[in-house]
Amino acid sequence: MARRNRRARRTGNAIQQLEWRDLVNAYGPIKVLDDEQVQTIIDSALGILETNGMRFLEPGSRMRLVSAGADVDEETMMVRFDRSLVMEQLALAPSSFELRARNPDRQLQLGDSHLVFASVGGPAFVSDLDKGRRPGTYEEMCDYLRLVQSLNIIHQEGGGPFEAMDLPAETRHLDLYLAQYRLTDKNCQSYALGGVRARDSVEMACIALGVDRDALLEKAALLAIINTNSPMQLDIPMTEAVNELAAAGQVCCITPFTLAGSMSPATLAGTLVQQTAEVLAVVTYAQIVKPGARVMYGSFASNVDMRSGSPALGTPEYTKCALASGQIARKLGLPFRSSNTTMSNCNDAQAAYESQMSVWGSVMGGAHLVNHAAGWLEGGLTASFEKLIIDAEMLQMMAEYLRPIELSDDELALDAIAEVGPGGHHFGTAHTLQRYESAFYAPIISSRENFESWQEAGSKDAAVRANAIWKQLLKEYEQPPLDAAIDEALVDYVERRKQEIQK
Amino acid sequence: MARRNRRARRTGNAIQQLEWRDLVNAYGPIKVLDDEQVQTIIDSALGILETNGMRFLEPGSRMRLVSAGADVDEETMMVRFDRSLVMEQLALAPSSFELRARNPDRQLQLGDSHLVFASVGGPAFVSDLDKGRRPGTYEEMCDYLRLVQSLNIIHQEGGGPFEAMDLPAETRHLDLYLAQYRLTDKNCQSYALGGVRARDSVEMACIALGVDRDALLEKAALLAIINTNSPMQLDIPMTEAVNELAAAGQVCCITPFTLAGSMSPATLAGTLVQQTAEVLAVVTYAQIVKPGARVMYGSFASNVDMRSGSPALGTPEYTKCALASGQIARKLGLPFRSSNTTMSNCNDAQAAYESQMSVWGSVMGGAHLVNHAAGWLEGGLTASFEKLIIDAEMLQMMAEYLRPIELSDDELALDAIAEVGPGGHHFGTAHTLQRYESAFYAPIISSRENFESWQEAGSKDAAVRANAIWKQLLKEYEQPPLDAAIDEALVDYVERRKQEIQK
Repeated sequence: MARRNRRARRTGNAIQQLEWRDLVNAYGPIKVLDDEQVQTIIDSALGILETNGMRFLEPGSRMRLVSAGADVDEETMMVRFDRSLVMEQLALAPSSFELRARNPDRQLQLGDSHLVFASVGGPAFVSDLDKGRRPGTYEEMCDYLRLVQSLNIIHQEGGGPFEAMDLPAETRHLDLYLAQYRLTDKNCQSYALGGVRARDSVEMACIALGVDRDALLEKAALLAIINTNSPMQLDIPMTEAVNELAAAGQVCCITPFTLAGSMSPATLAGTLVQQTAEVLAVVTYAQIVKPGARVMYGSFASNVDMRSGSPALGTPEYTKCALASGQIARKLGLPFRSSNTTMSNCNDAQAAYESQMSVWGSVMGGAHLVNHAAGWLEGGLTASFEKLIIDAEMLQMMAEYLRPIELSDDELALDAIAEVGPGGHHFGTAHTLQRYESAFYAPIISSRENFESWQEAGSKDAAVRANAIWKQLLKEYEQPPLDAAIDEALVDYVERRKQEIQK
Repeated sequence: MARRNRRARRTGNAIQQLEWRDLVNAYGPIKVLDDEQVQTIIDSALGILETNGMRFLEPGSRMRLVSAGADVDEETMMVRFDRSLVMEQLALAPSSFELRARNPDRQLQLGDSHLVFASVGGPAFVSDLDKGRRPGTYEEMCDYLRLVQSLNIIHQEGGGPFEAMDLPAETRHLDLYLAQYRLTDKNCQSYALGGVRARDSVEMACIALGVDRDALLEKAALLAIINTNSPMQLDIPMTEAVNELAAAGQVCCITPFTLAGSMSPATLAGTLVQQTAEVLAVVTYAQIVKPGARVMYGSFASNVDMRSGSPALGTPEYTKCALASGQIARKLGLPFRSSNTTMSNCNDAQAAYESQMSVWGSVMGGAHLVNHAAGWLEGGLTASFEKLIIDAEMLQMMAEYLRPIELSDDELALDAIAEVGPGGHHFGTAHTLQRYESAFYAPIISSRENFESWQEAGSKDAAVRANAIWKQLLKEYEQPPLDAAIDEALVDYVERRKQEIQK
């Protein structure tokens, strides 16, 4: 991960963007709770697990939990956990880990001060300014993956940017995995809805990376989002995914979907308690499946709009919960996942300010993974081509914000200040000219034209400019080389599995 | 400043917004420098003042500075300051103060953990979606002031939202002051370009508030932005304003306009050094004019776009400089001013994300005053009616973010979590219903409609929705009562002064 030349050199008309780099957040996180309050939330969560418990729908998981010492009521499927059981299992979970990528220069660090930005995963729809919002096709999804590969600020692909509706639902994941490995060389998330899809992702990771399952146990290649069914329930497909991924040493990013006022209490404190209880229940389960299983504390705590009952995202409540969740995760010793969210239906000011409120809460909450960091629109129902570019710009700005101010003698510039003197101009000095190329952040889509020039050029807003950028990036896209034998083996696997599934 | 009912009750169709409140920032600021680095910048600034000095264009100011012990070169107009002189004078500056308002409930606290949002001040143009961007009229300016009065999240009027181009330049400030006192009951900034305008603002404050100059010395009524002419120069109009305002006990918010790479070195460290040197020179001068003068450390440090030479605002560099400037200001014991900035020419995603980068840097830099907090567009050349509303939304979100998470037993909601149980729903519980009205932030313009409803309602983006909101706010506007005798005295003053000036 070269950090010497911060900016990619221009090649011809290529879009100028920051170079790939491992982001490190050296600033202290924002604390919205004091230490005692963090402990109160954790203690309350442990109390909920002890007194009320969590429902595990998958019968095998309950058997495992009983064997490990949990108290299970088979009729209600409720599992109660002594706090000592939870704390013992939690202690087995590592606080950081690496993730392989097909390109060894693009491996990821999750934990400590590292920060990973993942592209949007899971929407039902796709949209762009030309064709509007619609169900997406596989070819469109591949274009989206090409852009994810092209944008250096995106460290990880998010497990499929949207559903390829022209492909059969039960085998679509195989086509996704094939596209991930062919079109990108970055780490890609697993689409872990159920054991079958999770297992296929592990098998294909072995083929694509040329490693066996033992190697994957040593160092993971996959991360999957494990959503609980809040409140206080884990369903069968998600349990199966935990079984597969934890056993294979892959990362389970455990994320309750708690909208305060509907899936959790209408208070932030209550929502944080419930979220923590749900994460701890699944963390405990994952450790029972495989001691030392790699898990993350995921937060998706926001609120409903109390007037309409609809979700509200990128809200001040979201920001506060992200910051508080980071504090809780650090106290528990788990890597922390948050997201970039908005409810906006188009790429307007709302989309940007809600995303900003989310990203600031995530980054300054010490998130190790910002999921859906680029491309999400419309409460997660749509992956937008323009939002992908706008988010990339905002993420690049955060990356530059995270680069500490340097204070060498040369940067302090006392000689330059003396040289220019009062009323002078720094534009032509040697000190300035030395820094001409790299002194400041150079944006992708932000306009600094004066009003008249901007108007003459067609009064293009950020979304219109983003539209031109993604089209140019697609033109400039170069598919990363993949060994022909590996490609063939992946295709063989996909074809075999399709036949098995469609039988 | 009532803090019991956070939200204004709806009256009829009135726009729902947060109630007026004194904002307190209880979160610790983000630190982008360590303590030693802060001291290095301050020491370097003192070194610049000692070795190179600052140019004071106004002859009287140089005389005062000589008498106080500074070293003045009359030929170059350069003033050099021993660091002991600067530190002695700096020690006289108060670290916090109050500002009167016509409505005693709307007095302001500047300093400590208080946070004041001021509306945009000074643009040459006005814009809205209906009539586009244009030179503004007095009547349009009055409408803008009515909106500033109506929006509770705006604590202070910013000294005239834009120039009233249909009025003569030399007396326009008198019409502005009259409108400020008639149309708002909030604290309003002085338009302090030159001694005459500053003196008129003090005289009219005395009339409007029914106090004499002795009372104003005790507790200020006015704040003015004092811009240095970076690099390292203070011009005659600004010096005159300092003379008038400091002598009258009013607040000088000393703000260098340093765009790194043009008015300051092309490094953030150098820009912070120069900014600090300029602020300290004027702080020292203000204390010499009036020991104990109320001054603020203002930062407007950003950078130029190195490709075009045009200003770049709301950049990651801006954010870092705001955070660093807050650290420097706290170390110097001065209240800190920052701003909400963007280069965008329209109310698009860029306008929002650049404003967010600015506001996050300001608020988490511990700013006591966020200047231009609402309405600024186009690098400060335009006051936008729609941006005023969009910014008000973003500021309200920041205000809600600053409200700490409560952790009472009722908020922890353990009973509600137990009551709802796994797979249930919190929407109808007693715990939720109790909080129905006030649990979460209710936005002004943010849409939470689903895509289909939003599309049916005309696919309105945030700017279009903001357009409807400011029009409705103007309809609902109620002019705050002003004693008839005071009104008459203000009118008399304005007429007399116009005759004197136009003679």
